[in-house]
Amino acid sequence: MKIQLPKKALVTGAAGFLGSHLCRRLLADGYEVTAVDNLFTGTKSNISDLMDSPRFSFVQHDIILPFWGQFDEIYNLACPASPVHYQHNPVETMKTSVLGMLNIMDLALKTKAKVLHASTSEVYGDPLVHPQVESYWGNVNTIGIRSCYDEGKRCAETLAADYRREYDVDVRMVRIFNTYGPNMHPQDGRVISNFVMQALHDEDITLFGDGLQTRSFQYCDDLIEAMRRYMSLPRETVDAFCAKHGLGAPVINTGNPGEYTIKELAEETLRQIPESKSKLVYRPLPSDDPKRRKPDIALARELLGWEPKVPLKEGLSKTIEYFRAQQIS
Amino acid sequence: MKIQLPKKALVTGAAGFLGSHLCRRLLADGYEVTAVDNLFTGTKSNISDLMDSPRFSFVQHDIILPFWGQFDEIYNLACPASPVHYQHNPVETMKTSVLGMLNIMDLALKTKAKVLHASTSEVYGDPLVHPQVESYWGNVNTIGIRSCYDEGKRCAETLAADYRREYDVDVRMVRIFNTYGPNMHPQDGRVISNFVMQALHDEDITLFGDGLQTRSFQYCDDLIEAMRRYMSLPRETVDAFCAKHGLGAPVINTGNPGEYTIKELAEETLRQIPESKSKLVYRPLPSDDPKRRKPDIALARELLGWEPKVPLKEGLSKTIEYFRAQQIS
Repeated sequence: MKIQLPKKALVTGAAGFLGSHLCRRLLADGYEVTAVDNLFTGTKSNISDLMDSPRFSFVQHDIILPFWGQFDEIYNLACPASPVHYQHNPVETMKTSVLGMLNIMDLALKTKAKVLHASTSEVYGDPLVHPQVESYWGNVNTIGIRSCYDEGKRCAETLAADYRREYDVDVRMVRIFNTYGPNMHPQDGRVISNFVMQALHDEDITLFGDGLQTRSFQYCDDLIEAMRRYMSLPRETVDAFCAKHGLGAPVINTGNPGEYTIKELAEETLRQIPESKSKLVYRPLPSDDPKRRKPDIALARELLGWEPKVPLKEGLSKTIEYFRAQQIS
Repeated sequence: MKIQLPKKALVTGAAGFLGSHLCRRLLADGYEVTAVDNLFTGTKSNISDLMDSPRFSFVQHDIILPFWGQFDEIYNLACPASPVHYQHNPVETMKTSVLGMLNIMDLALKTKAKVLHASTSEVYGDPLVHPQVESYWGNVNTIGIRSCYDEGKRCAETLAADYRREYDVDVRMVRIFNTYGPNMHPQDGRVISNFVMQALHDEDITLFGDGLQTRSFQYCDDLIEAMRRYMSLPRETVDAFCAKHGLGAPVINTGNPGEYTIKELAEETLRQIPESKSKLVYRPLPSDDPKRRKPDIALARELLGWEPKVPLKEGLSKTIEYFRAQQIS
């Protein structure tokens, strides 16, 4: 009888919004999962249902410091991703991206693990090209209040590209556009959680600027599906894809190209929470806030045979259900 | 009798091209100088004439690791700055910029030292705005072969801005455009040293592309003068200047706005080395090579009352003199 041992995965940022969904999916796919999180923005309640699984281990650790172990796959998701959190301590945010990446790359190099790194549409900054393609270099301020996140994430991409070129580390990157769903931090200050929380509490729904700036909203399950497909590809396929498209490193956008204005989102939220007494109010746009973002997902389509499936209405409904349940518990 | 103790300065990258000139100037200005260098691209011969000074100390150290001491002023110049050197080990280049900056900022924070950080025109990448003003955010590839330098330097600026905003560190930055002069590394692969070395050795002078891309060439003494003036300003002056110009951090361009094509430089070099048998030859442009760079120095003019004084002809003559002497010795 041949015994097939489960593959081992390390997930950093595992108790966060996306990390918790990824852990759940990896367990469902038969993996043994080591979940690392410093619990700064992540919370154990996001993964409490996984704690009893014999294939799941949680380690409270900050990836600014090295972490060691033998894994087949590493998913590097650690970093506060919302302005209210990453601006709390900008220097630590930068360290999480840069020192975290150095630690993950050194681990991958020494143990031959395959890595998926969660990059972000923020590397495009306030884009001058629309929709954003992977070959666009971005428009980012180095010395502004968002820079700690944007430049840290850009720097992490550079490190990934160089570890791949110089040391042959098998690292793949996704640039994640706005993503939402259950397990979002209710106080992360981002638009969907803000609107839902405000609507549930009958508070004014705050729109910044004229509310006509657009965003793309990707439901979390769509992203996790893209990540898993990406990691299941043989290395040669990924390398050939980079060569074909002249990519300096395997980096693909994942997001939902459907565009909604912030105002439309607010209105849909109120439609789905009909009992809400909330009203729309307008506030000035914060400094360096990107005006418009929309992913070009042609590369992800081609490489992964993937595209987002969950419509905003449906995803928003599941998200509202989650936040409602949080209110009660 | 009142004894005035000399001010203490730390210079990182002190045995490099610019560091060595800065050390000489600080000694002339009465400072006690601690010169730190890992001697990767710097060389002791650049500072051998300073070794006997009782106010000069050399420490072989890599600023990837912390360095500690009590200084009034820190000049952070450490980082290989030419592609041939910084691409030798891209991950170490990134670490020098980022971990080096973290170490310098921590030192400055704990000891209340004032910092001048040597940033670079490379933060503008392949600029879409011409000439480059400090408010321009740049056009940089995160995953290309130059990214380790460009993104590392961008990240260092972000760290400086955040240490200043969050921890009140008095850090000032110059974005240095092409600078040349004696003590340049003869094999740094940059255009002036290349041309002079090729001309002195009767080798073909290689122009990349059509040779019509322009560069600005700043003589080293002009830059050192700008650095010293910048550091002599009271903090309030610098802070007020940032507020006036809406700068997220004190960062000013230093360079010579006089534009020359690479071809003109080659021709002037041959004029000054009349005995050379070299000929001009053309080679393809390397990937990501910036086509055009020219500093807007209005901010430096206003803040420092400074502008470059040394014409290319004169600076080139001194540089050729230096390289000639190197050939003989």
